[in-house]
Amino acid sequence: MTLTIRFMDVALEEAQLAGARGEVPIGAVLVKNGVILARAGNETRALQDVTAHAEILAIRRACAILEDERLAGADLYVTLEPCTMCAAAISFARIRRLYYGAPDEKGGGVDHGARFYSQPTCHHAPDVYAGIGETEAAALLKDFFTAKR
Amino acid sequence: MTLTIRFMDVALEEAQLAGARGEVPIGAVLVKNGVILARAGNETRALQDVTAHAEILAIRRACAILEDERLAGADLYVTLEPCTMCAAAISFARIRRLYYGAPDEKGGGVDHGARFYSQPTCHHAPDVYAGIGETEAAALLKDFFTAKR
Repeated sequence: MTLTIRFMDVALEEAQLAGARGEVPIGAVLVKNGVILARAGNETRALQDVTAHAEILAIRRACAILEDERLAGADLYVTLEPCTMCAAAISFARIRRLYYGAPDEKGGGVDHGARFYSQPTCHHAPDVYAGIGETEAAALLKDFFTAKR
Repeated sequence: MTLTIRFMDVALEEAQLAGARGEVPIGAVLVKNGVILARAGNETRALQDVTAHAEILAIRRACAILEDERLAGADLYVTLEPCTMCAAAISFARIRRLYYGAPDEKGGGVDHGARFYSQPTCHHAPDVYAGIGETEAAALLKDFFTAKR
């Protein structure tokens, strides 16, 4: 559990860094065998890439490091419930466990809306653990959108 | 309609090229104001990137060309019904129309499984036109998987 909190703290740090860059403050960390493979914050603005969510960037970077299309045995820590795009990418990458912080009622695709892992078109579902670091993750997002208004 | 078929032919060409590279033969073309912005075939193997579906690559390339996170007014032609990941990315990019060839009962996210555009967590849905070039698109996939066995 201590390690789990430590890795989510790294994801929260990535979220803070993203917010400081003017990006929506969401962060993600990919871990395998207790080692961080990749960490990323949201970069949709900087990269002018609508797919550059923290989870997608962490998956891409980890795949590049491992020189593998799949990340079997890897665990993903992300500060917000993944959207439907990211939920599917996590499945395709064969990620073992998904830990997320705050739920996302408006855009989440794991426990809201598409609930991708419950679909017959989903061929691998990670184990999902929600709520770790939820308060801090949600506060980062709330502060960001309050400041933007 | 003639233009629609012409653009789907380009997508089919990209699918064939992908197959020739040993990738799953799926191709996509992004068009705006009658001009091709980007074309792509599946490159998950070559790029060692599980997210490198034809649609995602075409979206990324078009965003880079337009220096914009959004592709409002653009139309996407793809040979196979997009998966859930790509369906969501198409929505995020604000693509206007989606033309796809063959349906994908096992992995589609538009008219199967998650049916993302019907979800309350979907905040932009393209107009969807299915079946253009379906026979050729399906034959490419069937031949590819038959040859692999």
